[in-house]
Amino acid sequence: MSKIIPYKTYLGEDEVPKFWYNMRADMKKKPAPLIVPATGKPCTAEDLEPVFCKELVRQELDNDTAQFEIPREIRDFYRMFRPSPLVRAYFLEKALGTPAKIYYKFEGNNTSGSHKLNSAVAQAYYAKAQGLKGVTTETGAGQWGTALSMACSFFGLDCKVFMVKCSYEQKPFRREVMRTYGAEVTPSPSMTTEVGKLINAEHPGTTGSLGCAISEAVETAVKNPGYRYVLGSVLNQVLLHQSIIGLEAHAAFEKLGEYPDVIIGCAGGGSNLGGLIAPFMGEKLRGERDCRIVAVEPASCPSFTRGAYAYDYCDTGRICPLAKMYTIGADYIPSPSHSGGLRFHGMSSTLSELYDQKLMEAVSVKQTDVFAAAVQFARVEGILPAPESSHAIRAAIDEALKCKAEGREETILFGLTGTGYFDLIAYQAFNDGRMEDCEPTDEDIRISLEKLPKVKE
Amino acid sequence: MSKIIPYKTYLGEDEVPKFWYNMRADMKKKPAPLIVPATGKPCTAEDLEPVFCKELVRQELDNDTAQFEIPREIRDFYRMFRPSPLVRAYFLEKALGTPAKIYYKFEGNNTSGSHKLNSAVAQAYYAKAQGLKGVTTETGAGQWGTALSMACSFFGLDCKVFMVKCSYEQKPFRREVMRTYGAEVTPSPSMTTEVGKLINAEHPGTTGSLGCAISEAVETAVKNPGYRYVLGSVLNQVLLHQSIIGLEAHAAFEKLGEYPDVIIGCAGGGSNLGGLIAPFMGEKLRGERDCRIVAVEPASCPSFTRGAYAYDYCDTGRICPLAKMYTIGADYIPSPSHSGGLRFHGMSSTLSELYDQKLMEAVSVKQTDVFAAAVQFARVEGILPAPESSHAIRAAIDEALKCKAEGREETILFGLTGTGYFDLIAYQAFNDGRMEDCEPTDEDIRISLEKLPKVKE
Repeated sequence: MSKIIPYKTYLGEDEVPKFWYNMRADMKKKPAPLIVPATGKPCTAEDLEPVFCKELVRQELDNDTAQFEIPREIRDFYRMFRPSPLVRAYFLEKALGTPAKIYYKFEGNNTSGSHKLNSAVAQAYYAKAQGLKGVTTETGAGQWGTALSMACSFFGLDCKVFMVKCSYEQKPFRREVMRTYGAEVTPSPSMTTEVGKLINAEHPGTTGSLGCAISEAVETAVKNPGYRYVLGSVLNQVLLHQSIIGLEAHAAFEKLGEYPDVIIGCAGGGSNLGGLIAPFMGEKLRGERDCRIVAVEPASCPSFTRGAYAYDYCDTGRICPLAKMYTIGADYIPSPSHSGGLRFHGMSSTLSELYDQKLMEAVSVKQTDVFAAAVQFARVEGILPAPESSHAIRAAIDEALKCKAEGREETILFGLTGTGYFDLIAYQAFNDGRMEDCEPTDEDIRISLEKLPKVKE
Repeated sequence: MSKIIPYKTYLGEDEVPKFWYNMRADMKKKPAPLIVPATGKPCTAEDLEPVFCKELVRQELDNDTAQFEIPREIRDFYRMFRPSPLVRAYFLEKALGTPAKIYYKFEGNNTSGSHKLNSAVAQAYYAKAQGLKGVTTETGAGQWGTALSMACSFFGLDCKVFMVKCSYEQKPFRREVMRTYGAEVTPSPSMTTEVGKLINAEHPGTTGSLGCAISEAVETAVKNPGYRYVLGSVLNQVLLHQSIIGLEAHAAFEKLGEYPDVIIGCAGGGSNLGGLIAPFMGEKLRGERDCRIVAVEPASCPSFTRGAYAYDYCDTGRICPLAKMYTIGADYIPSPSHSGGLRFHGMSSTLSELYDQKLMEAVSVKQTDVFAAAVQFARVEGILPAPESSHAIRAAIDEALKCKAEGREETILFGLTGTGYFDLIAYQAFNDGRMEDCEPTDEDIRISLEKLPKVKE
């Protein structure tokens, strides 16, 4: 007879993690270092400290320390929206008629609408601890900008957000949440930075890009005394903070006496997936336990499944260090899908190295299939998921149906990173049957990869 | 030394209530009955059953049964978004520097964005159990319509929502959530009903009203075999279902060894307040324990604080039964505030009777003061509140500041009924300093109350 598992498992306040976990400490072959484009040499703390907070630079470069204590102030903030529940998707299982057990870790129950707040609060805290006046960042879909605004408001820091101009105009509600939390939101390209002026002069009427917004945010941080730049994904430090997701999930499974056979997460820059899998990957790396790990990416931006593992620029503006990662090329502009959070050309260096070592798998999915899964999920599980998160739902449903066909009783865990309350234009397109799929041709990718920088490793 | 209270208290699945509680059973003087306008006689089950489901009619008319068992199917659905947390607002207390302990019961962690889902699932369940094909309703702000769509989708019922035309056009995102859950959303007045055609002919280009949408929904329910009409507030049955809020809060306080000195809730039709206070009011009615209870209403729609206690129509279209309630008159059109959920001219009969018996108090607040409280709350507690809920926040903050001035260590509980993710136009008006206050003059109210129907009690 099977155990009775509650619908939702919450950890008690005495059970929540007090340390973040750094997967790199348990990797025999470490992720490749960031490289300074001008010299071709690995980035040092001195290279990074003008841009990032000191403590965050330390976290970024530390490949050896496994446990980082979470400061009390951050744990206090986490208490407002964490622990997040580990949910047993009984209704979805029933709708699919699968023998698989499906669990999801739900990170959407906070005003930022996603897991982004986990790292935003950490980055804001360290900025405040260093005595800074404020931070700058860019935002596209707006979840990261919202999360950072909330964290800065809490710690009394200035927050300057460069929001891609087309998003600024098309997503006035996201913009307004940030303003409510006291952030200064500037459409990018703006006339407040040199790079913004240049781009506006070269491309009159441009609606901007994430690459351009990054450049403006970095310039503003470097030029204003007391400011630093912060980033919501890709970096090692972000994966470290996001490990709270996986650590809570791991502890909840322990309480239930269960363990996942497969872990599924959507992957844009890798912040959510890298956090969700962290302690499980740690056990895998240390040879203690094993489970499959699956990254799900959009067919329109397939860095893992169709990209190259090479050094590339992190930003289109080419002002950031080079990172070794699975990439479809910094110049490649993915089609305007409805999952803005997954439209990054590259992937976290740590995840890229794990993928290269075949410690994880990857699949790509089409957005119409993703929205079909989103609607199916919403109707039985009651939560309207974000388009990004719905990539994981799609893959989890496919896995559960495979279990059904093969009569296997697998335990599936997927990351439900956020809610879709600000993505109703996308749902409308799907509901009206107007949503389209697009993916790069082989030729598109070949041309883009030809432009990768030449780096001698 | 004071006890350490967790930030959030969740009940375990074995601790959640299995019965709803009906306050009317403990009232010595019962609320006045609904009356059939044509005959002036109290409504019987036969009068109501063509419009409402049988079991709901039974719940509506039963003034004696204290406990109603919650069917297993409803409890299963509740598990998807309940229990909701009882939150200790440590950060708000700190920001105010008050010796008061502030707690809130947060009902916003579900896709409908509010407590409305508690009753929607019950009403949909009973409709399904009766073998009906579907239900009809009206929605203004959209929270009730969304909640009902979710519940109907889950139980496989048709859901026809008449959405006030101006909301339909101004809130396309709410409309889209309903469509995603499979509801048919029609702008009201429509050309699909007799009353809609009539109103469109008399007022070409009208953008509709809640009263008109109610009339269309009732007509559609009565004319279509297998359909019934459902309502999200005001009615006794709705307060019964919403008692789950108060029952959970009561159980959580018991776990913590605490008890509120004062309970504060916003009040439009009374669904949230009536639910939140239920078990506490029960103890008060039975003389077991005592606490103050405060209804907070908008200054623009002050039924408790400036209305009359009299029989009045529940709808502007005057097709529903008469209810005895505090009212500013069914003809009075409140100014278009940003709290659509509180723009009802009357108030639940049960709450009205309790208020008349001086078992509860009422205050009214201006919307600019409400939004100032909303922003203050959001910045320290991390949740962007709905405008409606923020009325309770305003009153709770005022109470806590009074405690500070008087050096009193009161325990305050307020209801945080929902989130403001679909209310960013209102926040924008506030952030831009464009928000205005308006309230009826004494003359406005005098004229409106002159038109109350003459009913012989």
